[in-house]
Amino acid sequence: MKYFEDIRVGDTIEIGRHTFTADDIKGFARRFDPQLFHVEEEAGARSHFGALCASGWHTAAVWMRLMIDHRRRESEAARARGEPVAGMGPALGVRALKWLKPVYVGDTVVYRTEVLETRISESRPGRGLMTVRSTGVNQSGDLVISFISTTFVERRPRSPSPPLSFC
Amino acid sequence: MKYFEDIRVGDTIEIGRHTFTADDIKGFARRFDPQLFHVEEEAGARSHFGALCASGWHTAAVWMRLMIDHRRRESEAARARGEPVAGMGPALGVRALKWLKPVYVGDTVVYRTEVLETRISESRPGRGLMTVRSTGVNQSGDLVISFISTTFVERRPRSPSPPLSFC
Repeated sequence: MKYFEDIRVGDTIEIGRHTFTADDIKGFARRFDPQLFHVEEEAGARSHFGALCASGWHTAAVWMRLMIDHRRRESEAARARGEPVAGMGPALGVRALKWLKPVYVGDTVVYRTEVLETRISESRPGRGLMTVRSTGVNQSGDLVISFISTTFVERRPRSPSPPLSFC
Repeated sequence: MKYFEDIRVGDTIEIGRHTFTADDIKGFARRFDPQLFHVEEEAGARSHFGALCASGWHTAAVWMRLMIDHRRRESEAARARGEPVAGMGPALGVRALKWLKPVYVGDTVVYRTEVLETRISESRPGRGLMTVRSTGVNQSGDLVISFISTTFVERRPRSPSPPLSFC
């Protein structure tokens, strides 16, 4: 990951994309959200969603997975260039988490983050705080999920001060 | 579920409890949040958390499961009493989702919800909106997760108006 100092408000990245299969949707839902429209095609068709669709918590969990994969790719690329890798986390929490449209079988959701705010941490020296808006958009351009989260990011280590000279 | 009219601000319920095992924590994390402190004991011990701990999204997903189980128990009990069951959903989203303490192997989290606000829906006739704060507290009394969510709840069907009488 980039150091805090290298992150700019407005920076936008695509962290990855995921195509939701029926097995994928039902597998998550059987374990964590067994509402019938998340586990049975017929019940989905009869529901107000009109078809089997993913649990909102599933759509959010997929974001987390893609974010981890993205960070690992970034870290590996930095190491390959011989650059240091900044530490990140923990996350402080999430606000304004909205599920705006259902995610159906076969939908491909592209997840992006945009940096909304950066500020130096008052509580943790050596860390900054980065606030990002994360979104997921399906193949029709519909926003399906959106949320805002704030995470600690390591600051660039300061080079030692030059020796004081008295003249 | 209760009809909207039967829900009172301040109503608090325990929806269920869950003990997080190592397999449980690693199983979720391998699929959705493979940060090392969520998948390996040794990495957890070396991390700022001090031990293997659950992904925050896992702690949230367990809430969803317990909430569905709770609603089903409530609905079955109402049907057994010959009472009608109110429809619920969809959820509009979540705000102020905070992971306040790590959830470690062996922790038992008790999940509760408290009704913060009820109001009649302006957009959907026949529905009300219920806003609840959901919390998870571990066996030491520490709050580990907290969030606020708003969901549609069916209103009690009106009995037909008595015939107008002109005198």
